[in-house]
Amino acid sequence: MEAASRLVTEALEGSRYALARLISLIEDDGVDARAALAALYPHTGQAHIVGVTGAPGTGKSTLVNQLAKALRARGVTVGVVAVDPSSPFSGGALLGDRLRMRDLAGDPGVFIRSMASRGSLGGLARATGDVVKVLDGAGFAVVLVETVGAGQAEVDIARTAHTTVVVEAPGLGDEVQALKAGLMEIADVLVVNKADRPGAANTARALEMVVGRNASRAAAGEDGWAPPILQAIALDGTGVPEVLDAVAAHREHLRATGLWVGRERARVETELLNALRQEMLDRLLARVRPEQIQAWVERVVAREVDVYTAVERLLDAGGR
Amino acid sequence: MEAASRLVTEALEGSRYALARLISLIEDDGVDARAALAALYPHTGQAHIVGVTGAPGTGKSTLVNQLAKALRARGVTVGVVAVDPSSPFSGGALLGDRLRMRDLAGDPGVFIRSMASRGSLGGLARATGDVVKVLDGAGFAVVLVETVGAGQAEVDIARTAHTTVVVEAPGLGDEVQALKAGLMEIADVLVVNKADRPGAANTARALEMVVGRNASRAAAGEDGWAPPILQAIALDGTGVPEVLDAVAAHREHLRATGLWVGRERARVETELLNALRQEMLDRLLARVRPEQIQAWVERVVAREVDVYTAVERLLDAGGR
Repeated sequence: MEAASRLVTEALEGSRYALARLISLIEDDGVDARAALAALYPHTGQAHIVGVTGAPGTGKSTLVNQLAKALRARGVTVGVVAVDPSSPFSGGALLGDRLRMRDLAGDPGVFIRSMASRGSLGGLARATGDVVKVLDGAGFAVVLVETVGAGQAEVDIARTAHTTVVVEAPGLGDEVQALKAGLMEIADVLVVNKADRPGAANTARALEMVVGRNASRAAAGEDGWAPPILQAIALDGTGVPEVLDAVAAHREHLRATGLWVGRERARVETELLNALRQEMLDRLLARVRPEQIQAWVERVVAREVDVYTAVERLLDAGGR
Repeated sequence: MEAASRLVTEALEGSRYALARLISLIEDDGVDARAALAALYPHTGQAHIVGVTGAPGTGKSTLVNQLAKALRARGVTVGVVAVDPSSPFSGGALLGDRLRMRDLAGDPGVFIRSMASRGSLGGLARATGDVVKVLDGAGFAVVLVETVGAGQAEVDIARTAHTTVVVEAPGLGDEVQALKAGLMEIADVLVVNKADRPGAANTARALEMVVGRNASRAAAGEDGWAPPILQAIALDGTGVPEVLDAVAAHREHLRATGLWVGRERARVETELLNALRQEMLDRLLARVRPEQIQAWVERVVAREVDVYTAVERLLDAGGR
């Protein structure tokens, strides 16, 4: 506990070493992690959390890199959390995301973290949310969260951002990938990356049609924001300032309309319910003997009883 | 309850109408759903559950279609569950997966279901597992589960299969997509689809290198299975029988080594823990006033307390 609170103090004072250790501590999710998060939490709530998501091959990693550089050029500090759908077994990131960030290395106004998979449903979302809080609490003005945006957990993570940028690229297949991945409805800013490739205009048009169709969203005044569709070439930085401007405009919109706190509330509610679920399971597992759980698993495997009936009996008996 | 048990009886007798209604019932996850699953569960455990997963653009939908046709040609009944990472808001599938299955329509030995997103973390995995059980219980010999394979939830779903086929295609980007998505370690059979495209041999070689590197897995005797790397052109059916042979060989391997029941046990354990978590939350929410939960959300939003502390206090007070 003492160590955790010292790490928090040092991280708040700007120590990168403490920050890195703090994040590792939080990823490990032990008792110290909880203490550290509790100490850090009052310092959070300042950062603009921006999700950047898109199918593999859209070049969103390059875009995130360029956004970070452009933010630094404007004097804004930036944290990057890259969520790798990495190995469920090794728990390690397979590709060195940090390598591609080489030109940002050494800049104290940037901090980049690649998340390994937590190996279990929901674990990734929890860990990502906690790491974002650490970077927020440590004072980074913008936190970019990069997710692959083709899975349920990744969409859920993207939904926790204040602003979600959905990246698309021409020529990835027959259909617009963001459409296929169900990302259109969470997009606050749409970017057609690799805009120098053939088909970019078609992709933008396809997106416009869908956004137009979704105009009910803006018209209904639900949030009064029409997602802009921008073109960019992340590789050489073309269009990146415009993306940044759109992201900033969305933040102003959220602030002006009071939607900022609405998004916070939705995120907290999800986090609270997920944490409740996990904590109750942890408490149950601490009081029920493992052999008892195992016996129910065997009964389900033998088709003597189905999972839901097993759960009810288990809770009614040992667990309540 | 009466209606649910009649649906189960009729579905077991082969009524497709009852089967479709039963699946809808189970997706809705009400009291009747639990009763239906309990009635159906003793009839499950016969089907070979085969996950087919890969990044968008690999052509895995076409491959699934061809696998289903080839199975039918061998006289094997087949159920297909296509997991769409579809809209988190509308909850509806955006693309008509059933359309592409046109040539299978009217065959009573095939049943195809497109899953909509459940809109919450873990919900998709639960619903998919339950629908697979319905098709298993209804007597389909093979159940193909198609997932996009680029997200945590989707990887988790793929892991619940007896056999996982990972689909790759040349030219989707700089790196092998399966590698990037962390799918290599869950692959029992690897397929390089679109093998007539340039770069197919390179993709196969890249996969072979990784599989070779993972040889420790087979060498260590963990499961004694070296995942074959096959090439296919799903569009015209080339290589599809070989994929099916590899899938069948893997089933025989699982049966012969006793790993079949091991995979069942792992799946049941995950399902049991997830169901426990959810049931405990449901019971808590039934006993705590919504305003009480909302009050804690507000305190967390106001940074008076962090989520984990809120959960502990909530459980210690109202919730025990």
